Amino acid sequence: SEFTVAVLTVSDTVSSGSGPDRSGPRAVSVVNSSSEKLGGAKVVATSVVPDDIPRIKDILQKWSDVDKIDLIITLGGTGFTARDVTPEATKDLIEKETPGLLYVMMQESLKVTPFAMLSRSAAGIRGSTLIINMPGNPNAVAECMEALLPALKHALKQIKGDKREKHPRHV
Amino acid sequence: SEFTVAVLTVSDTVSSGSGPDRSGPRAVSVVNSSSEKLGGAKVVATSVVPDDIPRIKDILQKWSDVDKIDLIITLGGTGFTARDVTPEATKDLIEKETPGLLYVMMQESLKVTPFAMLSRSAAGIRGSTLIINMPGNPNAVAECMEALLPALKHALKQIKGDKREKHPRHV
Amino acid sequence: SEFTVAVLTVSDTVSSGSGPDRSGPRAVSVVNSSSEKLGGAKVVATSVVPDDIPRIKDILQKWSDVDKIDLIITLGGTGFTARDVTPEATKDLIEKETPGLLYVMMQESLKVTPFAMLSRSAAGIRGSTLIINMPGNPNAVAECMEALLPALKHALKQIKGDKREKHPRHV
Ligand code: NA
Repeated sequence: SEFTVAVLTVSDTVSSGSGPDRSGPRAVSVVNSSSEKLGGAKVVATSVVPDDIPRIKDILQKWSDVDKIDLIITLGGTGFTARDVTPEATKDLIEKETPGLLYVMMQESLKVTPFAMLSRSAAGIRGSTLIINMPGNPNAVAECMEALLPALKHALKQIKGDKREKHPRHV
Repeated sequence: SEFTVAVLTVSDTVSSGSGPDRSGPRAVSVVNSSSEKLGGAKVVATSVVPDDIPRIKDILQKWSDVDKIDLIITLGGTGFTARDVTPEATKDLIEKETPGLLYVMMQESLKVTPFAMLSRSAAGIRGSTLIINMPGNPNAVAECMEALLPALKHALKQIKGDKREKHPRHV
Repeated sequence: SEFTVAVLTVSDTVSSGSGPDRSGPRAVSVVNSSSEKLGGAKVVATSVVPDDIPRIKDILQKWSDVDKIDLIITLGGTGFTARDVTPEATKDLIEKETPGLLYVMMQESLKVTPFAMLSRSAAGIRGSTLIINMPGNPNAVAECMEALLPALKHALKQIKGDKREKHPRHV
């Protein structure tokens, strides 16, 4: 596959064994079924961490800096409760923000439910890795991927430095 | 009431006594008439401060840290003039950004007028307080509340730590 | 003319002489043909710099702080490649963010192409200068200006401190 993908479930409940990971496997399935539209993408790593900034940052940093994963999708921890800190951990790590990805995820998610406005998702680039927060709801990942798919392959190619992708229609 | 609300009018003109506060009373009336949809909400404090970062920060900090207000709505100081600094004061204080609230306020306000693009409103969480900037125009507060109402009760419940609200549809 | 405008092309290719500047002249033409709607606006400076943060910041600072330009439009360097750093250079300089301008540019650009989500444009105010990033694609500048025109004159008047513009409909 051209692109490697890692899926991080952020959840105290799942991490402590108090509940099943419903979002992680769903995200893996969504990525795999989108693989062709992504120009070949494969989930090569998954993990579960609690809603804890250092724990989230540790795994994101390892996946970005050591494993050179192309795309990291985080699930959960994007809401308004005191324990929701995934966007804060992510913003501490990204070197370049990608607000357009957040715009289209919000735009499409709001068509499904007004509760989408409660997502505080962040997204951005660290080195050659694109990190995108998605809500923990099992349906949200499919909706967010649907919003991103029309341009996500180009995003990943640009980050990898594909010269042919340097000047697509709008960048 | 379940939730306490405070309304801050930010305006040199009103603060100096050179003009009436048209936005503040309007915001109080909007919150009170939305009280049921907010699961019970009551304005317990109002204040007027000039367009001055330290003065804005002082009252926001008191209302958040000492009075533990659930929701603070600021009015005015969100435009492009040199004196408009409400978003800067707010961003200095919030610990977590809530970009989805800004998205829906912008989306709905733009349906009313293209001048809505001139709002630089910030929004976010400090401790257990949600702080939302709204433009000073008396009609803007009604439009912004209309945009937020479908999810604002859930936002406030999440911040208060209501477990039942921890995993709503999209967060 | 009431407002002075400067156009900065950010491109390694153009800067090194390896390719023509297709966006810069297009932007000048778009501004000039929008001059009336902008209340009188004239391009008084253009420049080309490589995709290099210090080089971008130097010219933006000179145009803002020394030449007191009213509006600076940058072209290019807003994508996802390692060399795309225009938003980072811009965010280092702006004192106040103007997220509503980004919202309407994204909203309108997405109607033309989903690749618009790959724009990482920043925008904001430094002193009395409004700085707006636009993608390097020659068509993008026209689309972005189209999105901004309904309120751009008011934005510039507010920044200049025109009292009559202090309380337009929505700010
Ligand atoms: Na929209």
